Amino acid sequence: MEKEFVLQMLEERQFKELKAELENMHPVDIAEMMEELEDKQMILIFRLLAKDEAAETFTEMNNDAREILLNALTDSEIKEVMDEMYLDDAVDVLEEMPANVVDRLLMATDEETRKQINTLLNYPEDSAGSIMNVEYIAFQKEMTVEEAILKIRQVGLNRETIYTCYVTEKRKLIGAVSLRELLTTGDNRTIEEIMETNMLYVHTHDDQEEVVGMISKYGLIAIPVVDNDMRMVGIVTVDDAIDVLEEETTEDISMMAGIVVPSEDSYFETSVWEHAKSRFPWLLFLMLSATLSGLVLGHFEAAIVAMPILNTFVTMLTGTGGNCGSQSSTLVIRGLATDEIEFKDIFKVLFKEIRVAALVGIMLAVVNGIRIVFMYHDVTLALSLGITLLFTVIIAKTIGCVLPLVAKKCGLDPALMAAPLITTLVDATTILVYFSIVTKIFGL
Amino acid sequence: MEKEFVLQMLEERQFKELKAELENMHPVDIAEMMEELEDKQMILIFRLLAKDEAAETFTEMNNDAREILLNALTDSEIKEVMDEMYLDDAVDVLEEMPANVVDRLLMATDEETRKQINTLLNYPEDSAGSIMNVEYIAFQKEMTVEEAILKIRQVGLNRETIYTCYVTEKRKLIGAVSLRELLTTGDNRTIEEIMETNMLYVHTHDDQEEVVGMISKYGLIAIPVVDNDMRMVGIVTVDDAIDVLEEETTEDISMMAGIVVPSEDSYFETSVWEHAKSRFPWLLFLMLSATLSGLVLGHFEAAIVAMPILNTFVTMLTGTGGNCGSQSSTLVIRGLATDEIEFKDIFKVLFKEIRVAALVGIMLAVVNGIRIVFMYHDVTLALSLGITLLFTVIIAKTIGCVLPLVAKKCGLDPALMAAPLITTLVDATTILVYFSIVTKIFGL
Repeated sequence: MEKEFVLQMLEERQFKELKAELENMHPVDIAEMMEELEDKQMILIFRLLAKDEAAETFTEMNNDAREILLNALTDSEIKEVMDEMYLDDAVDVLEEMPANVVDRLLMATDEETRKQINTLLNYPEDSAGSIMNVEYIAFQKEMTVEEAILKIRQVGLNRETIYTCYVTEKRKLIGAVSLRELLTTGDNRTIEEIMETNMLYVHTHDDQEEVVGMISKYGLIAIPVVDNDMRMVGIVTVDDAIDVLEEETTEDISMMAGIVVPSEDSYFETSVWEHAKSRFPWLLFLMLSATLSGLVLGHFEAAIVAMPILNTFVTMLTGTGGNCGSQSSTLVIRGLATDEIEFKDIFKVLFKEIRVAALVGIMLAVVNGIRIVFMYHDVTLALSLGITLLFTVIIAKTIGCVLPLVAKKCGLDPALMAAPLITTLVDATTILVYFSIVTKIFGL
Repeated sequence: MEKEFVLQMLEERQFKELKAELENMHPVDIAEMMEELEDKQMILIFRLLAKDEAAETFTEMNNDAREILLNALTDSEIKEVMDEMYLDDAVDVLEEMPANVVDRLLMATDEETRKQINTLLNYPEDSAGSIMNVEYIAFQKEMTVEEAILKIRQVGLNRETIYTCYVTEKRKLIGAVSLRELLTTGDNRTIEEIMETNMLYVHTHDDQEEVVGMISKYGLIAIPVVDNDMRMVGIVTVDDAIDVLEEETTEDISMMAGIVVPSEDSYFETSVWEHAKSRFPWLLFLMLSATLSGLVLGHFEAAIVAMPILNTFVTMLTGTGGNCGSQSSTLVIRGLATDEIEFKDIFKVLFKEIRVAALVGIMLAVVNGIRIVFMYHDVTLALSLGITLLFTVIIAKTIGCVLPLVAKKCGLDPALMAAPLITTLVDATTILVYFSIVTKIFGL
């Protein structure tokens, strides 16, 4: 709706009205709308935005839209946007841009900012340093509450968050004070009296997942980031934490589906070729591994020729095994991601899974047994399939729960040990168990 | 480490030191530690906690620990905990407790609180109303900034969040003011002058996923909740949003692995029987559906007997098909969850997936072809497997990307259309395509 409205105003050249309309829109929504416009319209609208709104909108856009804009804007316009952007957002933009655009962007910033940007760009990818904000409020411990509030009132406007403030001494982090605390205590108390000295913090090189885990676990609005000498260098805010959380979830889920996790580009932004490249490796590996179950099946060729009906149950058995295994591995992978399960729980998990497997296996064997007796009037067949099912479910759930835990222990991502790999492993095992049982029972 | 330290102090009856130690710990960590203690120790430690700390610790505990405590505490102790707890947390606790405990808890609250709790309990599960806080700060539009700040300073301590305040008129929501705005503007301006009237809000019956989506999309600290008459009834804060986000992700991932999503209990809190019950339905359904692929395979019995080697490629083909399908369905399900993909994009997605499938299919066919020629010296076999692979990949990716979109359109959860179901569907199709091709080529 909004898009049509904006386009109409653009066409009728009602720039003043459009400008007012845009001021009422949230930058997130402006960015979303602009991504759907033609290049020329997008540039026109961007130029109508107020300075700070333009910077925020630019931050929210996808890379394709950003590139189009940067190629159209003049150097002084770019400088305006860069000046208004928060440093951490500027760094995010730079990380995704081609080299020639990066140069132009860096040229548009003053030397001090450029230095800060370069420091931020040097933190390892996915580290606390790479997602932190370098703008925050720090007090000295000798300040009174009144002075602290005054300081916030003076500088607050330019800082991304003021709701948690920090106390530093020779740049070292020594305490934290929430704005709520400041506002609800006596004006004449000193910061030292009210500050929390036992505050939570992270190091610049800590993994972003860990940072987000702490923000989520303790319900924080922000967490300070310190270097190896406890010098405070920035904060990670909860809104950035949520973005990281969603990004990490997408990564985990993709990996669990056998997709080599590529860029941070979205589905549509990723080219067909990039998609193919990220999906091919696992497919290839799994296809070749499936040769194993093929060989096992080939080994029992004589039994199949002697009793062809046995073959019709193979997909049912491998399918059930695969599903059982991926149920277990999924629960364990998720438990590891949310810190509920640790490696030391391996026997607790195993014991639980085996009991669940026994229960589920028996239930499936009974239902399938009834079906077989009903369809084929063959109790021996029903019985051997039942035994196979029980074994399959137990083996599958054992493999499914143990592998992610072992992967974690070995420093691998547990999400690698998900459905695709488990299924392939379980396939071969299931076929082996199945034919070992039936060849014995039917004397093939 | 901390746990051993605490236990030692407990044993040596150093209660005073232990009390001081506990005051320095975060309630989240106390709760985590207590869950690992014996009942008696847990109760002892809980009684050492300061009132507000006890309430917060209780909020953070799992249900098993809560029940043990509630059974041990006296009525007046329970009343103290309930009085200190935030209402929304109290409601969360009540929702998970057995009926007799709920009665005791409700008896321990005063009548007004009981009424409020009952209202909150009546909101549909997973609605905005069920996760909101009823404690927030509201101003009248005639107030000055100075008066507003004074109000925050007076009541702030008892409200869960004060960083975004709201403006109401006859209880209706008419604006929002951030604390940052209040602190950085002139003391004598009125709220009406500085309030944002175009603020974001949700309705009590909106789905919690939608609420979290807005908080995440717009980077909010809190969002107001209104009833059908725009009367403000509460706020949802970002820390609760993160919990919901993680819970919803667990739900989605579980569903994608064919697990009927059960209670909000964690992996270890869920009993073996509950686990079995949540995993059995899909396993049963999929096992019975696999009969289909068994029947298709049975149909080509003659071909297999005539050329048994064909059978050894079945698991490789169905495995590859299943993996391809679940890659596509996973990406689409995640895209739908993060609002990047919508139903209207169906043809865009389909076009992309078919091109990716063609690329991947050809690459797999070539590698597999080389392997076959090398292992079996049979070019015709390599060729027919190649054609089958190409078809399989394209069909699998088509099914994989279309089903979640169709499910969404029909109001079903797209996560249902994940690996297990896709695999079962693709299995039967793959076998059909495979034998149709080879029987023709080899004239079986």
